[in-house]
Amino acid sequence: MLALVLDNSLVRLQRDRERPLSGDGLVRVRTRIAGICNTDLELARGYMGFEGVLGHEFVGEALDGHLAGARVVGGINFSCHDCATCRGGNPRHCPRRTVLGIQGADGAFAEEFLIPGRNLSLVPDSVSDAQAVFTEPLAAACQLVEQLAGEVPPTALVMGDGKLGLLLAQVLAAHACRVELVGRHLDKLGWLGDSGVCLVEELPQGKTWPLVVEATGSREGLEAALQVTSPRGTLALKTTVEGSHELNLAPVVINEIRILGSRCGAFEPALELLERGQVQTEPMIGGRYGLDDGEKAFERAACRGAGKILIEVG
Amino acid sequence: MLALVLDNSLVRLQRDRERPLSGDGLVRVRTRIAGICNTDLELARGYMGFEGVLGHEFVGEALDGHLAGARVVGGINFSCHDCATCRGGNPRHCPRRTVLGIQGADGAFAEEFLIPGRNLSLVPDSVSDAQAVFTEPLAAACQLVEQLAGEVPPTALVMGDGKLGLLLAQVLAAHACRVELVGRHLDKLGWLGDSGVCLVEELPQGKTWPLVVEATGSREGLEAALQVTSPRGTLALKTTVEGSHELNLAPVVINEIRILGSRCGAFEPALELLERGQVQTEPMIGGRYGLDDGEKAFERAACRGAGKILIEVG
Repeated sequence: MLALVLDNSLVRLQRDRERPLSGDGLVRVRTRIAGICNTDLELARGYMGFEGVLGHEFVGEALDGHLAGARVVGGINFSCHDCATCRGGNPRHCPRRTVLGIQGADGAFAEEFLIPGRNLSLVPDSVSDAQAVFTEPLAAACQLVEQLAGEVPPTALVMGDGKLGLLLAQVLAAHACRVELVGRHLDKLGWLGDSGVCLVEELPQGKTWPLVVEATGSREGLEAALQVTSPRGTLALKTTVEGSHELNLAPVVINEIRILGSRCGAFEPALELLERGQVQTEPMIGGRYGLDDGEKAFERAACRGAGKILIEVG
Repeated sequence: MLALVLDNSLVRLQRDRERPLSGDGLVRVRTRIAGICNTDLELARGYMGFEGVLGHEFVGEALDGHLAGARVVGGINFSCHDCATCRGGNPRHCPRRTVLGIQGADGAFAEEFLIPGRNLSLVPDSVSDAQAVFTEPLAAACQLVEQLAGEVPPTALVMGDGKLGLLLAQVLAAHACRVELVGRHLDKLGWLGDSGVCLVEELPQGKTWPLVVEATGSREGLEAALQVTSPRGTLALKTTVEGSHELNLAPVVINEIRILGSRCGAFEPALELLERGQVQTEPMIGGRYGLDDGEKAFERAACRGAGKILIEVG
């Protein structure tokens, strides 16, 4: 079958990849659409030392298991469900986990791939494939709301108008939060206004927010974010920057700031937001490529401000 | 009157300091015992640019106001109680605040000083002066419990056997938490065992804790602390290191760690712990000096492992 494979820091199309075989709790899924994530680009640069089929954002059709024949999306962490971490209620942090297209498990940029049946969620009929492919990154955005334990403050600042920043802004706005989003490409983001998100070009002087989301992925972003977080406020870290930050942490102690690292999330809240139309994804799509044009798709995804690049498989 | 004054980065005894006058909500307190804090040492090195009488840990006798004649301790933040931050319930973070012996307000290393009457708390009869002088740093330790919103996990690691580390370990142990404390001077800390705190010389390999308290005040401490915080666990920052940290924050995001900055706290929980005898302070005292030996007291306090140096005033 066709597959987009990371091999020796090179993303290349393989035409004769062997079709995977289900079993041991793993079911086969036929990919319909898969999305390129920044993590894919980082993996291609050597992050995590991954080799194999890339791709962890997908909507597909289950080929076996209890959802056979249905349109599905799925959680990317393959957990043991047996260790102390899993039994303690944090299977997404299982120390023995493999991760779809990221760590020890082939991903979704292929005609077919394997995933634990228990990881799959049914896609509601009213949610299109092009919407459903955003479920995984949207779940990651929803995770912040879960970590805030329902206490979303009345105002928030989202720093960064990349894909995750745009999803986060909409998720917070959907939770009755007045969101200001600061970014570089605001001219393209008029549609965000419909979600109640206010676009600002520069940080207003002297203003602080009880919730600040750092989604720029830049080294400077974090220090700037600390400066505009209110005393006893929350600074959410959603992106990782490779290597070390030079960071003055005194404001964290003096202002008693809570820093929340946040990664993957549960799919149900994300699917609900998509079903209720509370998050727009269509304007975020920057291009659609066939799987056999996957290498070009990666080149495009690596361009600044490219938006979400989708790979349409079947 | 006698006062220990920071002037031009020099701590010196002034014999003719003018006695302060009460008024405008400020009452006079006659200092009985005051404690030297690491913050005092940092102030002497130029931190905050403070000039004036040092000292913010005290037990004294109120000379006027509603507690006149009583033994008192008191909160160090002089807040306006009128701004949005104060009215929002966070007066200790008032942006207009002055801080006793730290920022814009003379402190307690003097025969008398001023403090807002509303900041004072009565010291219970069963709590000695030498215990009561620990109320402020103990309140800072209790603040972590308040920030955890009552959810103290069953196990914790405290890194650092300085004064704050020792108080934090005891406070957590008093909240049914099995605490391991890692430090350099464990030989002197046998008494901590009575509080249920377990002393460890080195971090055990591969073990993680749902709560890690960084109280070493060192640059390396924070990075090490991140490594031993469990996924979805909490890392509490209680000390500030001047300047910038070189820090890899990827584990914060990947393991969804919550970093809690924590500074001052309410006095009532601290006084309750002292009254119930759940925190031992006596073994932490490293020396007692008269106010006219204050310069020597500062020299002693600056020595590594000196313990809490007390200044006995009246």
